[in-house]
Amino acid sequence: MTHPLSVAVAGLGTVGAGVMKLLRDNADIVAARAGRPVAVTAVSARDRTRDRGVSLTGLRWYEDAVALAADPAVDVIVELIGGSDGPARALVQAALAAGKPVVTANKALLAVHGAELAAAAEEGGVPLAFEAAVAGGIPVIKALREGLAGNRIGRIAGILNGTCNYILTQMRERGREFAEVLADAQKLGYAEADPSFDIDGIDAAHKLAILAALAFGRPVAFDAVHVEGIRKVSALDIAFASELGYRIKLLGIARQGENGIETRVHPCMVVQTAPIARVDGVFNAVVAEGDFVGRVMLEGRGAGAGPTASAVVADLVDIARNRVTPVWGAGSAALSNAPSVPMSEHVGAYYLRLMVVDRPGVIADVTAVLRDLGVSLESMLQRGRAPGEAVPVVLVTHETQESAMREALSRIADLNAVLEAPTMIRIEPA
Amino acid sequence: MTHPLSVAVAGLGTVGAGVMKLLRDNADIVAARAGRPVAVTAVSARDRTRDRGVSLTGLRWYEDAVALAADPAVDVIVELIGGSDGPARALVQAALAAGKPVVTANKALLAVHGAELAAAAEEGGVPLAFEAAVAGGIPVIKALREGLAGNRIGRIAGILNGTCNYILTQMRERGREFAEVLADAQKLGYAEADPSFDIDGIDAAHKLAILAALAFGRPVAFDAVHVEGIRKVSALDIAFASELGYRIKLLGIARQGENGIETRVHPCMVVQTAPIARVDGVFNAVVAEGDFVGRVMLEGRGAGAGPTASAVVADLVDIARNRVTPVWGAGSAALSNAPSVPMSEHVGAYYLRLMVVDRPGVIADVTAVLRDLGVSLESMLQRGRAPGEAVPVVLVTHETQESAMREALSRIADLNAVLEAPTMIRIEPA
Repeated sequence: MTHPLSVAVAGLGTVGAGVMKLLRDNADIVAARAGRPVAVTAVSARDRTRDRGVSLTGLRWYEDAVALAADPAVDVIVELIGGSDGPARALVQAALAAGKPVVTANKALLAVHGAELAAAAEEGGVPLAFEAAVAGGIPVIKALREGLAGNRIGRIAGILNGTCNYILTQMRERGREFAEVLADAQKLGYAEADPSFDIDGIDAAHKLAILAALAFGRPVAFDAVHVEGIRKVSALDIAFASELGYRIKLLGIARQGENGIETRVHPCMVVQTAPIARVDGVFNAVVAEGDFVGRVMLEGRGAGAGPTASAVVADLVDIARNRVTPVWGAGSAALSNAPSVPMSEHVGAYYLRLMVVDRPGVIADVTAVLRDLGVSLESMLQRGRAPGEAVPVVLVTHETQESAMREALSRIADLNAVLEAPTMIRIEPA
Repeated sequence: MTHPLSVAVAGLGTVGAGVMKLLRDNADIVAARAGRPVAVTAVSARDRTRDRGVSLTGLRWYEDAVALAADPAVDVIVELIGGSDGPARALVQAALAAGKPVVTANKALLAVHGAELAAAAEEGGVPLAFEAAVAGGIPVIKALREGLAGNRIGRIAGILNGTCNYILTQMRERGREFAEVLADAQKLGYAEADPSFDIDGIDAAHKLAILAALAFGRPVAFDAVHVEGIRKVSALDIAFASELGYRIKLLGIARQGENGIETRVHPCMVVQTAPIARVDGVFNAVVAEGDFVGRVMLEGRGAGAGPTASAVVADLVDIARNRVTPVWGAGSAALSNAPSVPMSEHVGAYYLRLMVVDRPGVIADVTAVLRDLGVSLESMLQRGRAPGEAVPVVLVTHETQESAMREALSRIADLNAVLEAPTMIRIEPA
């Protein structure tokens, strides 16, 4: 098994160029660990002339990415085109149908079409590897699928989007508002010109759907993920969070409960002393809780050419060594059919922040609503006095069901003395 | 490939019982991920009658652990006897010679006889797996050997011994001295009756030797590890460390330098804001720095029946799936022969704490020694004044070579006004 592994790379953006650079710079290390050389022999990208900092001399060039799957001299396809449909999906389908192993960094593709692609991979007995799809260079797919394989996972929680974590960190450290920090992040290249995919939580939800499938050994279920982004997080709430001993993080959480699996992405308050609360800036982290292993946390860079290339090459090394794992950790016949639990059944503690007119009776009205819905309070915080004017009031509840909380929010918003839509942030146990 | 994987467990202490419990409690999950059932069919231990909380009914019992290797109905040997020689070594040798894959949690065996055992495994084409040997349930072996396989690793640093980390954490949190905290830890079962193996750094050095071999793709070199334990760390130095913005941790560090690989285990000062500085109590953590991936940290429980069983079973799942990795990540022909660098060539910053007579001229004498040896100071700290009596003086140096520092320490110790052997703690960059 010493013939080189011949790799085709589809998509030569920063990650594609990073993969080519890694395979050249570290060719000796990769060959030693793969048991044979691993070399890119064919590529496909939109623009042949663009300077990517890596030479394309001697490589077969394809206008049509899907045609790579039919190149008989290609052993493995690396799909770095992106997007849940279009040429990325067509290429992966064609490669698996042709019996060629696939390595992809495409979380959207796997989250949306993972079930179909896993079936194709299993039918053909072809590896479909995607370490780079979640948390960049952190080997979290391998950890969940292989390293913690003996465990019944109870919960996973992750900081899965570096852009959001960077923005929330900057907001806290500098006391600034979301819109200002986003604008700066865009200038610095930490946020896209159209940032919605990141800041509305969709990217994190794609990744969480993949992690949940691996952790619980069930088919990927992106549509079941409850998704909220960070647009509504304010500097005021971040300041209150600090005062209460919390940090606000956008987490992706998957939890096995009595009635099924809960998957959700939303801003969370986590106690400042929790390890995940201290993961700042563009870093990602994933916490997994297993019945035998206890709590394990993995932390590192979740994006960028280098970290993502590292993950892609790890998958190539596995393929070169014939180390194969079923897509979701177990074959389709052995997957669980645990149902998804709707968000309305979520139970947890809540932080509420209201802007109310500072006058007698307002708190009584608010707490009456909560009492009527069976929501009990752990604490209340009011900052400053300004009779007749708007003041913030913070309420922290004990464990409550989401459906009751939503009804309470709706009734509270209707109170005369409540001046704007209440802010609600879920408190996540550390 | 649906016939069950038949496992023999040698050594039924807490970890052995944990492995049996995991394979029974989570049989469904393990079978799904392994692609077939994984079941213990034979065991060996010293005492057949002891109650271990797991039934041994129906299992073949062996007085002589080495005889497990000859049982034709056994597919894999799990060695949990411990110790670098004796029956553990004999069993692993016999199993590899018989072509039976081995899973072991035995760091001493691998650190001391790893080269010989790796050769036997390679010659016979037999897997030798040891995820449980380092950092308990944290999948750090898999991460280094597979997950980060594309990277040139520059440095690894780890909290590799939970007993030491627990003691140092308690000393800091409670302001207590080493001996008192050790005695309490022994009562609580966090430290052995004979604690030397842990607190003198030997256990951490075994683990570091294994990690260094994996990270740098070279044969294991335990004898090259510089080892110091935590017996000399005092409450006073922990208090000074906090004042200077550091935490004191027992770290195992392996670093690729210009002249070769430096491996060392000793108390370190690390800045309080470094992620590894915040890993407290019995937790373990490993930081790996790769040229493409950047910094990755893995954190979790480094010992105990559950975490260790989790790691053993992960290895069994790999074997059940025929996922095989060479012992040190690459075949022997592809291993590096990078030399080890002696500790005398280490370059870093140092914390020195002296007890001196508080009288004019003492500091001038001390700093003259440092000047003569080319050691430059970053800062100096003196607490309290007590003319004519003993006061502590703290010096922090700029980067200095260990050999110069050792000579300086020797000369400073000889000064009349210096009342006890100076304390030296190396400062490790975050």
